[in-house]
Amino acid sequence: MAMNTEPINLTKALASFDEVYSPRIVARMNDYDVRIAHTEGEHVWHVHQDTDEFFLVLDGRFDIALRDAGGRETTVTLNQGDVYVVPKGTEHKPSSPGGSILMFEPSGTLTTGDHHEGELPDHVDSTTGHEM
Amino acid sequence: MAMNTEPINLTKALASFDEVYSPRIVARMNDYDVRIAHTEGEHVWHVHQDTDEFFLVLDGRFDIALRDAGGRETTVTLNQGDVYVVPKGTEHKPSSPGGSILMFEPSGTLTTGDHHEGELPDHVDSTTGHEM
Repeated sequence: MAMNTEPINLTKALASFDEVYSPRIVARMNDYDVRIAHTEGEHVWHVHQDTDEFFLVLDGRFDIALRDAGGRETTVTLNQGDVYVVPKGTEHKPSSPGGSILMFEPSGTLTTGDHHEGELPDHVDSTTGHEM
Repeated sequence: MAMNTEPINLTKALASFDEVYSPRIVARMNDYDVRIAHTEGEHVWHVHQDTDEFFLVLDGRFDIALRDAGGRETTVTLNQGDVYVVPKGTEHKPSSPGGSILMFEPSGTLTTGDHHEGELPDHVDSTTGHEM
């Protein structure tokens, strides 16, 4: 089988879809996905019990509210070029005034976690990531 | 233990060291590292038998020569914002006229693979990644 020798450009990939909070899988390595998403508005509180989640802000701003074991909330503000890892088992809620992110997580990881709080708003896609 | 709520900025992290082909670990997630490196000059032919390797070009240009099972060589040219995965078991040799990259790979993965060809030049660091 011929090797794939075509890189994917993230700017072009982001321009190929409009939906927010609806990640596309741009690459797979081992049993992990590299996903990209547009971000705008409030996501939902959710938790991944079994995996950390890596974020890189490609453009704009992306905030991650975190809730510790004692129920205290803190918000991490990420700007372009910032990276952050949400540890497994940590409740978190993303929000954004507009931007785009790259995520690294195990294939099959659901955007809304093992469980989430409240109703899912229309602009939040509960998915394990879409093909490009 | 208090949660880490400080993101790391990749531009600042890259500005904090000068060495080429000497990756710094900017984040860990599960048993994977997120590493960044400056790139310039020729790396060495090497192979990772047990893991894929993910590359994102942050700045400049980064080329990856690949050798297939039949010994045929192809070069993938990556510019800023391009992503590419070298499949496990594929012999490859990076080179660059200058730039910087982000990599995902299992913690412990050696920059020069399970084996490499020829002498290691002085500007290539054989390492599993340095702390920031």
